Amino acid sequence: MSERVRSHWAWGYEDAFPDEAALGKLEKRLAMTLSGPLERETAVPLGSIELPKPRIVPPYELRAFGSDAPSDRIHHAYGKGYRDLVRAFRGDIKSPPDWVFYPESEDHIASLFLYCEREDVAIVPFGGGTSVVGGVETVLEKGFRGVVTVSLAKLDKVLSVSKVDRTARIQGGMKGPALETALAAQGLTLRHYPQSFEHSTLGGWIATRAGGHFATLHTHIDDFVQSVRMLTPRGPFETHKVPASGAGPAPERFILGSEGAFGIIVDATMRLQEAPRWRAQATVSFEKMDDAVRATRALAQSGLHPANCRLLDPVEALVHQVSTRGDAVLLLAFESHDHPLEAWLERALSIATDLGGTCEEEGRYSSEKSQESSAWKSAFLGAPYLQSALVSLGVMADTFETACTWESFPALDAAIRADVGDALGRACGGGLVSCRFTHVYPDGPAPYYTFLGKATRGKELEQWATVKEAALGAIKRGGGTVTHHHAVGRWHKAGYESERPSLYGDVLRAMKQKLDPRGILNPGVLI
Amino acid sequence: MSERVRSHWAWGYEDAFPDEAALGKLEKRLAMTLSGPLERETAVPLGSIELPKPRIVPPYELRAFGSDAPSDRIHHAYGKGYRDLVRAFRGDIKSPPDWVFYPESEDHIASLFLYCEREDVAIVPFGGGTSVVGGVETVLEKGFRGVVTVSLAKLDKVLSVSKVDRTARIQGGMKGPALETALAAQGLTLRHYPQSFEHSTLGGWIATRAGGHFATLHTHIDDFVQSVRMLTPRGPFETHKVPASGAGPAPERFILGSEGAFGIIVDATMRLQEAPRWRAQATVSFEKMDDAVRATRALAQSGLHPANCRLLDPVEALVHQVSTRGDAVLLLAFESHDHPLEAWLERALSIATDLGGTCEEEGRYSSEKSQESSAWKSAFLGAPYLQSALVSLGVMADTFETACTWESFPALDAAIRADVGDALGRACGGGLVSCRFTHVYPDGPAPYYTFLGKATRGKELEQWATVKEAALGAIKRGGGTVTHHHAVGRWHKAGYESERPSLYGDVLRAMKQKLDPRGILNPGVLI
Repeated sequence: MSERVRSHWAWGYEDAFPDEAALGKLEKRLAMTLSGPLERETAVPLGSIELPKPRIVPPYELRAFGSDAPSDRIHHAYGKGYRDLVRAFRGDIKSPPDWVFYPESEDHIASLFLYCEREDVAIVPFGGGTSVVGGVETVLEKGFRGVVTVSLAKLDKVLSVSKVDRTARIQGGMKGPALETALAAQGLTLRHYPQSFEHSTLGGWIATRAGGHFATLHTHIDDFVQSVRMLTPRGPFETHKVPASGAGPAPERFILGSEGAFGIIVDATMRLQEAPRWRAQATVSFEKMDDAVRATRALAQSGLHPANCRLLDPVEALVHQVSTRGDAVLLLAFESHDHPLEAWLERALSIATDLGGTCEEEGRYSSEKSQESSAWKSAFLGAPYLQSALVSLGVMADTFETACTWESFPALDAAIRADVGDALGRACGGGLVSCRFTHVYPDGPAPYYTFLGKATRGKELEQWATVKEAALGAIKRGGGTVTHHHAVGRWHKAGYESERPSLYGDVLRAMKQKLDPRGILNPGVLI
Repeated sequence: MSERVRSHWAWGYEDAFPDEAALGKLEKRLAMTLSGPLERETAVPLGSIELPKPRIVPPYELRAFGSDAPSDRIHHAYGKGYRDLVRAFRGDIKSPPDWVFYPESEDHIASLFLYCEREDVAIVPFGGGTSVVGGVETVLEKGFRGVVTVSLAKLDKVLSVSKVDRTARIQGGMKGPALETALAAQGLTLRHYPQSFEHSTLGGWIATRAGGHFATLHTHIDDFVQSVRMLTPRGPFETHKVPASGAGPAPERFILGSEGAFGIIVDATMRLQEAPRWRAQATVSFEKMDDAVRATRALAQSGLHPANCRLLDPVEALVHQVSTRGDAVLLLAFESHDHPLEAWLERALSIATDLGGTCEEEGRYSSEKSQESSAWKSAFLGAPYLQSALVSLGVMADTFETACTWESFPALDAAIRADVGDALGRACGGGLVSCRFTHVYPDGPAPYYTFLGKATRGKELEQWATVKEAALGAIKRGGGTVTHHHAVGRWHKAGYESERPSLYGDVLRAMKQKLDPRGILNPGVLI
């Protein structure tokens, strides 16, 4: 597995990229939907990309665990958002990191801090590099002589496990699959499956408050963090290992969402679970989207805490082939390591059918040792591959998400569909917008939108900016949040600044000043 | 109800203080337990307490909503911890607030900030005044000319309710009973019942991260806060009203636990519930405390989320008359507005009995519209009255709590019992220590200890300090937190400082500097 090669521009492993047959099929389908021939291209190969020379020469003892090889610099120049894919596809890499470091110890990180503070070099902490908001982009900000990426790839071990507490102390650079494999050997699981699972890291999840597997209750990584250890230029910051505390403002919450601007997350003690043994699930169809929203709200407020409660609008239901009748579809599931779930599912279905839903018998079961629908799972984890494939086919495809109250959802949703639809018309001559709820709360849903339109070669970034601006504007006017789980990074900064309390910006800057007085950590991101 | 008079020294209403018959009975029982006659006293009456003159004369426009009447100053001099009760009982009030203000608007609060900044006067924000950690004590700190208390008593309304979102915007000064009465009219409830419920306020709960009704899952007020509005000397700080967000470190978590040191919480939008319609509960006895702990852990890790999961050690079980056989007793309950709970209770009992518990049939039921055992509820809310009564009987009685991992609990518990027992021996010639779990988490319990010993007249504060120091020392060495839900205030400050990451102290000071540059807000508390 360690020999699989990651694409220098597309999502994930090169060997998992859709093959010619799949691309051809996709191309045909999309050309119909987007009415017109697509402008297919191939990526600029890694070896043909021209890079500027490194602006700095780090001292010998740092070079020992770093690299300025073009391949390392290219792989760490961008995240995996649409803008990143397009630029890397075209070989457009103007500001790669000057060096990439792979520290193997806290001492290595401390040495990097000293060097970078002394030499005015910025540090971009890098987990799996899957940011879709410009969170790992190595822009040279004013006042810096260079930018280096600090990859956590070598800090990738489980340090200790407590079966009694069901916790494990895990290093920040550990990726999803390796982490789950190591924990499975102990009969435990974190069960945090963001769409980036295959390539993202624990440290990255914590730094960005990643959204995970559970549609209700513990939706973000936040609640699974018992304690976290972060290295800052002023020293280590490690929170107390207790299940709960009422002592002052919670220190771990300052680290969650700090996006590499306060320090580098070296390890965390995580709350785990036993692998689920029972699963009960059902598919519920609704002729009217309004009824589906009302039923989903009732479920979110029921106290039943379904593990999955994903509502697809008619377009998404069609694309994911769960309904071809134009229905909205609610995918509902409960899971437990402890008990059968028939009573839970039965009550949930009674709520959903009372409010206009129809439960499809073929989609319903409750049993021991069953698994989440593997069709959905592979489509879910495959979606980022698909987005990359679309780039090569000349299709602009991206997603954005928010969270809002139930009261504000109808108007917000209508505004997003209208404004994004209009922007797609202006930028691409038309396109598609669809919506699903990825997570739901008693006080509101987290709607997740997908849009696509025909790309015009060389104009993709402007096209995308037009649509993204329309989306952000509608979210802001409608009272949503700029991000439910994609983080702030560079691309959501303006929206974030208008949404956070204005005094809070001062507070964050004061905190940063204490932990990172020279401002070397991820400048330009978040703060 | 508004005419009921609150005691100037004891917990709660004067008319609810135990009467002569109850006191006599209690005295007899305790004299036996604590081997020796108790030194009964009566409180110094309000009218006989001598106060220093106010050190400041506020301007006319502030005096319009303030008071320097002795009764106002006495009622706001202390919280309701053991040290407070003893001092107020004796009429020992050396540093009452110079003035007490009852702002009726945000403008009033802004005017107070201006005046206090200009004149070097400290402000102690005051909700219900039920702090047991010195959180509302009006000590004159260095650099100040005076101290005023700002009571939120007049900011006590529900501002708006959303039945769709199941949320309400509620002012900070609203007390538990009034809040629940107002919400009940809309078919809603916050269901946050700290032991101080009768007299504490929403703003106080948020400022101190109060622990509430639910033994699992949503244990603290934290999770019920959708949005909060705090006034600081630099202006208002109001968080976005969304059900969830992944945008940067969560701003509401900076306010939760800020203990009046960053600002005054004027209102908050709270997540509510419908009143429970179903309840299922059971009492489970264990011959061995170890088995009881193991069963409680299994329940905390089961994903069943009981509303109550309170484990009493044999002493507590005896005192609360739930077992006279020397058993540990687990009080277990589920509640729901949405569904009957037989399946939940059945599975929970199967876990508990598999691990050595015996379910007592008379304590078990599952039904619609049933209520929490009113005997337990009245004992729970009556406990603070009892503590005050004990002060008058010459008995030192107090509680402290922590939270720790399941792995560390056995050694921590043994150390606390040994050290506190030893300290009671030294200070009081003996005494009692008992323990219950008030809240439990998948990764550990929140043990809550009660201790009592014979008080020596005039020496109570030293006796108490001896025992408290032993408790805090054992907690610190054993890896617990200095407080699970009583907050930090003045009395836990040393423990708090040793437990929080040292850089975090710098961060909190930097934040305070931004929001309250003159440091007028609750100086000496938390930071």
